[in-house]
Amino acid sequence: MKFYRVNMTTKQAKIEEVPQKFAGLAGRALTSSFILDEVDPKCHPLGPNNKLIFAPGLLGGTSCPNSGRLSVGSKSPLTGGIKESNAGGTAAQKLAKMGIAGLIVEGMPEDDKYYVIKVTVDGAVVEEAPAEIIGKGNYEAIQVLNKKYGEKVGIIIIGPAGEMKLTAANISVKDPESNIRSAGRGGLGAVMGSKKVKAIVIDDTGAPGVTIANMEAFREAAKRFAKGLTSHPVTGEGLPKFGTNVLVNILNEAGGLPTKNFRAGRNEWANNISGETMSATIEARGGKVTHGCHPGCVIRCSQHYYDKDGKYLTSGFEYETIWALGANACINDLDAIAMADRLMDDIGVDSIETSVTIAVAMEAGIIPWGDAEKAIDLIKQIGEGTPLGRIIGSGAAVTGQAFGVSRVPVVKKQAIPAYDPRAVKGVGLTYATTPMGADHTAGYAVATNILKVGGFIEPLKKDGQVELSRNLQIATAAVDSTGLCLFVAFCILDNADAFQAIIDMINAQYGLSLTADDVTELGKKVLRAERKFNELAGFTKADDRLPEFFKEECPPHNTTWDFTDDEIDEVYKF
Amino acid sequence: MKFYRVNMTTKQAKIEEVPQKFAGLAGRALTSSFILDEVDPKCHPLGPNNKLIFAPGLLGGTSCPNSGRLSVGSKSPLTGGIKESNAGGTAAQKLAKMGIAGLIVEGMPEDDKYYVIKVTVDGAVVEEAPAEIIGKGNYEAIQVLNKKYGEKVGIIIIGPAGEMKLTAANISVKDPESNIRSAGRGGLGAVMGSKKVKAIVIDDTGAPGVTIANMEAFREAAKRFAKGLTSHPVTGEGLPKFGTNVLVNILNEAGGLPTKNFRAGRNEWANNISGETMSATIEARGGKVTHGCHPGCVIRCSQHYYDKDGKYLTSGFEYETIWALGANACINDLDAIAMADRLMDDIGVDSIETSVTIAVAMEAGIIPWGDAEKAIDLIKQIGEGTPLGRIIGSGAAVTGQAFGVSRVPVVKKQAIPAYDPRAVKGVGLTYATTPMGADHTAGYAVATNILKVGGFIEPLKKDGQVELSRNLQIATAAVDSTGLCLFVAFCILDNADAFQAIIDMINAQYGLSLTADDVTELGKKVLRAERKFNELAGFTKADDRLPEFFKEECPPHNTTWDFTDDEIDEVYKF
Repeated sequence: MKFYRVNMTTKQAKIEEVPQKFAGLAGRALTSSFILDEVDPKCHPLGPNNKLIFAPGLLGGTSCPNSGRLSVGSKSPLTGGIKESNAGGTAAQKLAKMGIAGLIVEGMPEDDKYYVIKVTVDGAVVEEAPAEIIGKGNYEAIQVLNKKYGEKVGIIIIGPAGEMKLTAANISVKDPESNIRSAGRGGLGAVMGSKKVKAIVIDDTGAPGVTIANMEAFREAAKRFAKGLTSHPVTGEGLPKFGTNVLVNILNEAGGLPTKNFRAGRNEWANNISGETMSATIEARGGKVTHGCHPGCVIRCSQHYYDKDGKYLTSGFEYETIWALGANACINDLDAIAMADRLMDDIGVDSIETSVTIAVAMEAGIIPWGDAEKAIDLIKQIGEGTPLGRIIGSGAAVTGQAFGVSRVPVVKKQAIPAYDPRAVKGVGLTYATTPMGADHTAGYAVATNILKVGGFIEPLKKDGQVELSRNLQIATAAVDSTGLCLFVAFCILDNADAFQAIIDMINAQYGLSLTADDVTELGKKVLRAERKFNELAGFTKADDRLPEFFKEECPPHNTTWDFTDDEIDEVYKF
Repeated sequence: MKFYRVNMTTKQAKIEEVPQKFAGLAGRALTSSFILDEVDPKCHPLGPNNKLIFAPGLLGGTSCPNSGRLSVGSKSPLTGGIKESNAGGTAAQKLAKMGIAGLIVEGMPEDDKYYVIKVTVDGAVVEEAPAEIIGKGNYEAIQVLNKKYGEKVGIIIIGPAGEMKLTAANISVKDPESNIRSAGRGGLGAVMGSKKVKAIVIDDTGAPGVTIANMEAFREAAKRFAKGLTSHPVTGEGLPKFGTNVLVNILNEAGGLPTKNFRAGRNEWANNISGETMSATIEARGGKVTHGCHPGCVIRCSQHYYDKDGKYLTSGFEYETIWALGANACINDLDAIAMADRLMDDIGVDSIETSVTIAVAMEAGIIPWGDAEKAIDLIKQIGEGTPLGRIIGSGAAVTGQAFGVSRVPVVKKQAIPAYDPRAVKGVGLTYATTPMGADHTAGYAVATNILKVGGFIEPLKKDGQVELSRNLQIATAAVDSTGLCLFVAFCILDNADAFQAIIDMINAQYGLSLTADDVTELGKKVLRAERKFNELAGFTKADDRLPEFFKEECPPHNTTWDFTDDEIDEVYKF
């Protein structure tokens, strides 16, 4: 396996052997270890000393189902801490098949041009970006790049938000239909923008493919794993049928659907924006109810959402986005939310950060609660780079600061997602303690608190939540290192054989004999590296806290965020 | 001595005895001890749990020269840490004469009105603010309040920026001519705005005055002290003649005048904006070259700067403001800078934070370098609350973030002032380590590095700077507790008898027998309290660092910021 290292100061690239210290690491384990090793935690995230690394997972490029996630690592310009954000699309599998463990972008041009990095089996070259994609949205730019470099290339790209180095900017990855999948969180698009890389084009022509030490064992395990996924009620039924948006009605029922900037956990209009409504709408309009974000996905939680005229509007239309605009910003209109989602994908901003920020803007009185048209206008202003657009595109914390709002749902300056921590207490601990800043995916306690996956821990009580969040954060760090979609966790939490199948695949591929304990150790190692980076960047326990307004009661259960500081600090004792 | 405690939630006020734990504390010693004691370091600075305290110093309200400074304490919405900012004007002396050690404002109204707190010897009352001052600038609002409450009242006030809760907003204090003196730094105007207090009016009719235990000894010491001040070359000559702006030519000569967003330490146009030019201009136009910001000032470093038509434009026209616009933002026009200064005072924003931010805006390409007209337009936009105005009014760190600029001169998110830390290394250590965020006044090593006051330590070298910054920070914390203007330090650093005179006055006033060691202990105690608050708020050594771009060489000396982390961390070992 190789590192491709691209220096944007010199525009030179080189191919290196993966240094011994990173041997056996992939995905998040590699990106986080690399960032800790090579990036000064005190550097300016948009300065020349930050780096960006793209890494497929341990199982990337193989026939293992759902193994196509691409990890992106850097120092986050949003949180100021370490960041791993991952996405689907076709890039990770191509990199893995080319034997590229990590694609590193470092340095910064002194000129003011934008560039494309072209990656082939022969190496990487830095080319001036075609003028017609500068300032352009991701949908259009991908088409231009497809035409120039061929339909089959993988593309990693930033939109206008990334070019403007806005801290809500994401990095997007082309999916099999040339639509958009995003490594959304933490503003990594701004880092790519600071390095003036508009896009990375991956042409895997001539790629040797992944070597599997024991192909027969691999195939057998992959089969067991696929069976596990397709037979579990969440990964085999709920997600394919309704997408992640199946959660709207579930969370509303549970009283954990944050409404009107986290003032309540339930509302009257939730079914208008629910997964059930969404599926029926898609079906009626001839869209795709189920769809995979990368080749080899058997869960297929994505969809093609069509507008009233039967035209493609968006895909990867997630619960968290729909919640943020639909419940938290009170926009009772799925079509408007879908249009907003398309625009955010196109402009290249994290739809969670941006949508939570829109509710903060409503809190500030900039636009009225529930006003879809004005919310869409705010999103368009991000793309246009108006001053107001730049505020919104800088995320919830900056927007709160610029407008003097104290009710700002962020941890480590990253917007809190779609599950009220007072009503789903396990995930609240994850928000508070993960090195990533508020992030449900970092330890998705919703699974066990609400979906009764991996057992059941009462969501409104504190008992057992510390262990739950801790164990899930460790497991997630490991899963994020495999290249597997995190949703496989729903299955493996309930199905020991499916979990074993993953280990069997890794062992078969690499000729190893890892055990479940090794997986746990890997997860711990990743988290320790990430916490270490953050500590050196200046983070302390005081950063592992939720905003004080969560001491208010949250209807309908009227529970509060009542963990003591000491209890919270237990999560990272391992 | 009493606390006046005003609860803005209930609109009720009460008078309390000063609790024993705060006995003997005044000024910064009181504000910082109080904030550590009563404010949750993790609270939102603009939420209901932050508090604001106004305190005269130990010598406030006496005949001691230059003892009229008012300390304002709170959790800073700009830095997130503790803040003491102080100003001249008439308020402190009135509070002291009324026996008020601390005026505390806590809570937050639930309604959306603005209020005036009226303070008399009988107590404080909360009144609805006159409609005609809401949204108005400080100059006009002070006139309205003078008319309503009488010309003689003391006034503490916020401008439109404070009402908007912008994090560059300051708190202003009426001076003897009803002009404006500001507790500029740290965004405390936003805290006052969050509590919906437009102004505090102090009517000291019937005030008993300050009790002096030994009046004869006090008078004798006060005389020695006055003599010391008027005979020292800095406080007796330089400051009265040229104001603080005497420093432009001195710093330019020394190569420490940061130019074009800290790209160099010297420029060709400095004399156009120098104190010498300023004094000549004022004289030619019939303004006042020398003037005191509060009764009893014998240094008189302020002035009345007149425009071309001989009309009053501004006073308290400081070197730091003139540097920030004139050298750092390359605006080669003293009249334009004076107009900008007037506008910043009127709108109620810190002129250092705002002017440094304007250079960051130039760095971002929002307006051209040196464009006075556009810079003034940006300041006006702050007052108008346009989105761009809100970005600028949120300070340099937010402006840098919103526009993707990595060259942002801040420490703890507060703008770095007028002395390049690579060319005046002692003050660089103060910027890095003071709990206040970048602040020259917290330990003004410029005195010994450049002005050869208190000895001489070579500014370009590291030797001796740690001890210098440490000792000055300790001494400053003590001076800020006396109510004395910090400029007395120029004198007492060179004149042991003048220093002793201060101690003698305190002893004579309170019937004590303090020594110089007690003063040092007080300074250390204050700094320890402030560091403790910041630690609980989440600050670490990693926050005691300058931005990485100071590793670049600074012409003309081509020195760099080369202190190691360990060396920097020595400053707070005492």
